[in-house]
Amino acid sequence: MHTLPSHAMRPLCLNPSLCSSRFPFFSFSIPIFHKFKNNPTIYKKSQKGPPFFSIRCCGSGSVTAKPSWELRRNRAAVQEPDEKVVALRQLFTKPGIGIDAYIIPSQDAHQSEFIAECYMRRAYISGFTGSAGTAIVTKDKAALWTDGRYFLQAEKQLNSSWKLMRAGNFGVPQVSEWLNDVLAPGGRVGIDPFLFSYDAAEELKEVISKKNLELVYLYDLNLVDEIWKESRTKPPNKPIRVHDLKYAGIDVVSKLSSLRAELVAAGSSAIVISMLDEVAWLLNLRGSDVPHSPVMYAYLIVEVDAAKLFVDDSKVTSEVMYHLKKAGVELRPYDSILSEIRRLAAEGAHLWLDTSSVNAAIVETYKAACDKYLMNRGSRGKTKNKQYFESDSLPVGPSGVYMQSPVSLAKALKNPSELEGMQNSHLRDAAALAQFWCWLEEEIHKNVKLTEVDLADKLLEFRSKQDGFLDTSFDTISGSGANGAIIHYTPEAESCSVVDPNKLFLLDSGAQYVDGTTDITRTVHFGEPTAREKECFTRVLKGHIALDEAVFPENTPGFVLDAFARSALWKIGLDYRHGTGHGVGAALNVHEGPQSISFRYGNVTPLQKGMIVSNEPGYYEDHAFGIRIEVQSHSAISVCS
Amino acid sequence: MHTLPSHAMRPLCLNPSLCSSRFPFFSFSIPIFHKFKNNPTIYKKSQKGPPFFSIRCCGSGSVTAKPSWELRRNRAAVQEPDEKVVALRQLFTKPGIGIDAYIIPSQDAHQSEFIAECYMRRAYISGFTGSAGTAIVTKDKAALWTDGRYFLQAEKQLNSSWKLMRAGNFGVPQVSEWLNDVLAPGGRVGIDPFLFSYDAAEELKEVISKKNLELVYLYDLNLVDEIWKESRTKPPNKPIRVHDLKYAGIDVVSKLSSLRAELVAAGSSAIVISMLDEVAWLLNLRGSDVPHSPVMYAYLIVEVDAAKLFVDDSKVTSEVMYHLKKAGVELRPYDSILSEIRRLAAEGAHLWLDTSSVNAAIVETYKAACDKYLMNRGSRGKTKNKQYFESDSLPVGPSGVYMQSPVSLAKALKNPSELEGMQNSHLRDAAALAQFWCWLEEEIHKNVKLTEVDLADKLLEFRSKQDGFLDTSFDTISGSGANGAIIHYTPEAESCSVVDPNKLFLLDSGAQYVDGTTDITRTVHFGEPTAREKECFTRVLKGHIALDEAVFPENTPGFVLDAFARSALWKIGLDYRHGTGHGVGAALNVHEGPQSISFRYGNVTPLQKGMIVSNEPGYYEDHAFGIRIEVQSHSAISVCS
Repeated sequence: MHTLPSHAMRPLCLNPSLCSSRFPFFSFSIPIFHKFKNNPTIYKKSQKGPPFFSIRCCGSGSVTAKPSWELRRNRAAVQEPDEKVVALRQLFTKPGIGIDAYIIPSQDAHQSEFIAECYMRRAYISGFTGSAGTAIVTKDKAALWTDGRYFLQAEKQLNSSWKLMRAGNFGVPQVSEWLNDVLAPGGRVGIDPFLFSYDAAEELKEVISKKNLELVYLYDLNLVDEIWKESRTKPPNKPIRVHDLKYAGIDVVSKLSSLRAELVAAGSSAIVISMLDEVAWLLNLRGSDVPHSPVMYAYLIVEVDAAKLFVDDSKVTSEVMYHLKKAGVELRPYDSILSEIRRLAAEGAHLWLDTSSVNAAIVETYKAACDKYLMNRGSRGKTKNKQYFESDSLPVGPSGVYMQSPVSLAKALKNPSELEGMQNSHLRDAAALAQFWCWLEEEIHKNVKLTEVDLADKLLEFRSKQDGFLDTSFDTISGSGANGAIIHYTPEAESCSVVDPNKLFLLDSGAQYVDGTTDITRTVHFGEPTAREKECFTRVLKGHIALDEAVFPENTPGFVLDAFARSALWKIGLDYRHGTGHGVGAALNVHEGPQSISFRYGNVTPLQKGMIVSNEPGYYEDHAFGIRIEVQSHSAISVCS
Repeated sequence: MHTLPSHAMRPLCLNPSLCSSRFPFFSFSIPIFHKFKNNPTIYKKSQKGPPFFSIRCCGSGSVTAKPSWELRRNRAAVQEPDEKVVALRQLFTKPGIGIDAYIIPSQDAHQSEFIAECYMRRAYISGFTGSAGTAIVTKDKAALWTDGRYFLQAEKQLNSSWKLMRAGNFGVPQVSEWLNDVLAPGGRVGIDPFLFSYDAAEELKEVISKKNLELVYLYDLNLVDEIWKESRTKPPNKPIRVHDLKYAGIDVVSKLSSLRAELVAAGSSAIVISMLDEVAWLLNLRGSDVPHSPVMYAYLIVEVDAAKLFVDDSKVTSEVMYHLKKAGVELRPYDSILSEIRRLAAEGAHLWLDTSSVNAAIVETYKAACDKYLMNRGSRGKTKNKQYFESDSLPVGPSGVYMQSPVSLAKALKNPSELEGMQNSHLRDAAALAQFWCWLEEEIHKNVKLTEVDLADKLLEFRSKQDGFLDTSFDTISGSGANGAIIHYTPEAESCSVVDPNKLFLLDSGAQYVDGTTDITRTVHFGEPTAREKECFTRVLKGHIALDEAVFPENTPGFVLDAFARSALWKIGLDYRHGTGHGVGAALNVHEGPQSISFRYGNVTPLQKGMIVSNEPGYYEDHAFGIRIEVQSHSAISVCS
């Protein structure tokens, strides 16, 4: 692989159960095969795509770049939760509801990694503000699941009416197992079907059906929203902007045309795009609805002869309106998505739905409408005449095409303009980092006491002076000594450490610029590292270089190369428990699929020319130090030679 | 990995479609990522296990170690095939048959890699004697499929009534596609259900059902056998011998006891073992029924309280009889397997069947008997009282447990006695090879003209002088210059080359000893290799060493390590189109599962302590030279340090 001239960084999105930074075998220094224990968990189908990238900190409701402690302070203002749980339970028996339990996940309706504050329902109901967690309220219990990163925080934030479920700990049941355990057979489990991908809802439904529990989709209201009411922040309504063609490289008409060709080839007549970065990429638009990702809340439906953007029109400027009109994209209210789905089914549309990301509300609505169509068909005779009905090869009546969204791969294969924007933004980002490291070295030599948060804030200050800077691309991981071993560490102003010049310091950070997105990690020492630290750093660097220098056949999936990054560590019985590389969006999400470089070998997406992927091996010694070295790489000599 | 002190070799069993020794991109010498084309085919489920290892030369009907040209001469004596095809067709319309086509595969009833001459029905009916091929006779057509290794041979051996189907060539349909094409809807396709694994038959059935063709199982007679009659050799009947406990390491009672514990854990009450090496390994017996593998034709059924060996009792010596009796194993006629299956189903047995290897006759018989049991149950009330019926946890009535045979993994994890036998036999084998190379160097220096077959025969002579030598473990691959680039090359006395001292010479060979099995490849030059040959050899050797030195976490599947063996070749745009390592039996089959080291990442079997696996990267330049360097490795320092 050939790296971009500048760089960026952040740890691979991890399965929460894998957050332990050190394997049991890490203490064996003799390279013997049979001493290795606890192989990394196999990548599971249900973890593919967005969920794989969706467990990081969700940031705050604001999208303006502010020092991170300020954002965090806003989030911490929570009410006394008991009343809320009581109020929620009172809704269980209302007409049309009739449930025995209600699940409140962390997700928004688009499986986003970073979500707007008004959708942080799990944080509101439980008081726990960490990025990952699931709350369940039954008629007499309230429980919250989170992973090892957040046990301490959750203990502090949950009041006595909540039980903390330490996910991954021995004997702690999964959400579905727990439901099977605490509810009586025949019980009804309510969910907001917008907040679960169809695949996730189906999986849950199947498991709880074993105990004869029923999953109930409450389409019309979210019970948390019902009690949240006036204290709830309004949905974000910052204006959408056009992403300049000089950065986007391909105009919207061309992108829609390519997509339509794929629809026809797949035997479908329309597609629902629900991932926010896919909508933004396809329409060359950018938004400010969530922190860290330049996206706006919207669905997009592309038919062979039409396209409709479902979005709050208060965000649509006249420039955006004109931009969309030129590409033949009509506007529809965000909330009218389901009625449009029903209309399409009634017209016999063959809808392409990526059930790993499209929410259960949309998929179930379509399926129900298809069933209705077929029932009515006999009596009503012929349906409306739509062009995709004239083909003999398509099935009669609506039927879904359930495959991965084609936008995912198209977006991952960067065009020359996107690559240029990524290179330029990385150059400016590297300049800010150089200023930062220079400043830091001087401060340390002057014996100035600086905390981890001070450093994150100072780095933001340097970055924000760069042209085109918009936001951080994730919460900065600034970890001194033992904190560097916490893979997802985010320092808090009240509790973070002073940076110790005699310990390793790990800095994983990135930014959103108008032309590109960065993600870079460096691990440094301000004095003399120990022999152990030197050896581990050298082996991480060797792995980084081995992956960087890898040459491999076309169509090789990323996991084939993963071992190159680990081999030097394996030789002395060490490893790191996260993936080695993730895709990075071009002025879009800092984590994107479909490619990855990981020990999770379920992802067989080939690495292809034009893809950008991070290269970030690491090593973590609990309670001692953490090492990670990350740049973004681009696999094509033609661009980066 | 830590290698055994001596070594052995043979190319990885390849998918016939992968036999081309060179990728299109091999001519690119600049290491650029996007020039790589034609990634190796992904390992498919249907290729798992035995079929993966079953496409090599099937050898001859004799099991005595003879020079290979002598064996080959016997095989070539074929009759005029037209009469046979006519006679076969006449059987199509007989009562109880009524078919429109008959498929004659290469397999025996046990999915063996090497089969006895009397089961070489495809060779008999078609005249084509290569190891891999499928013949189909319809009422007006006769076609034979084989792969690129055998196109020339098949052209010579097939007469005009046969059409050669060059599998893998552009536009050549697969067997099932061809049937769908040439038969009228409603047509009946006959097979001998003993000669197809259940999975293979089901796959075929599904594909041809799309054209409304029916797969007809002819249990009672094999149509080829019907016309073969007196000219057919008798089934092998060489005596079975006891495999000494000092080599086997674990006695039969202990092995059966472990197996029974696995049966109970899996909720089954009996298992059918049909792989010949599994039967031999479980019972500490060895046979001489097929070339190259020390096995005997037999099925074994192990119940929780009984065990029955289905074998021709003329092969059972009194010593073997006593040995079996001690372990509680009863004898049954080989041909009575189906009636025993019916009996077990009628008793309500939960039969463990590995449908990837157990033949369709057995599985279908069991399924039909289960259905019958359930139909009769209402009227007959309770079934016979069998101990596995008393458990509440088992389903009522017989039901199959369809999983990989547990014997496969148990056999792969060698015990200390087996490892010792493997080491000892490798030492003796290495001595024979040293004698051979020494002799060869002298002959070459004396300018003696020697053919590739001369060398194979001389090597056999040296090996046969070693203690405990029994047979070659596969047909020796002895290839000079361009012949070395033919991955499955087997020299023939009539057509082989004289070994050219100015070209690379590739020798891949192995032997069966009483205590172990070997498989080793060396590539040598007798003068001055070209710069290109040196560079390629060095890169193959670097790959071999990289894999040999790999240290990796427990539970790592072999494919994770495969890239280590290729990386040095990839750097200059080269690759080899076969796997890197296969399991090797301990005084058993030279190719065994379940582990492998391959780019085919469908095989997720972890490499484990005690497994023996070959390490054999290569490089093949068409019409020029071939390079392969192979030893057997054993992944545990505790044994091989």
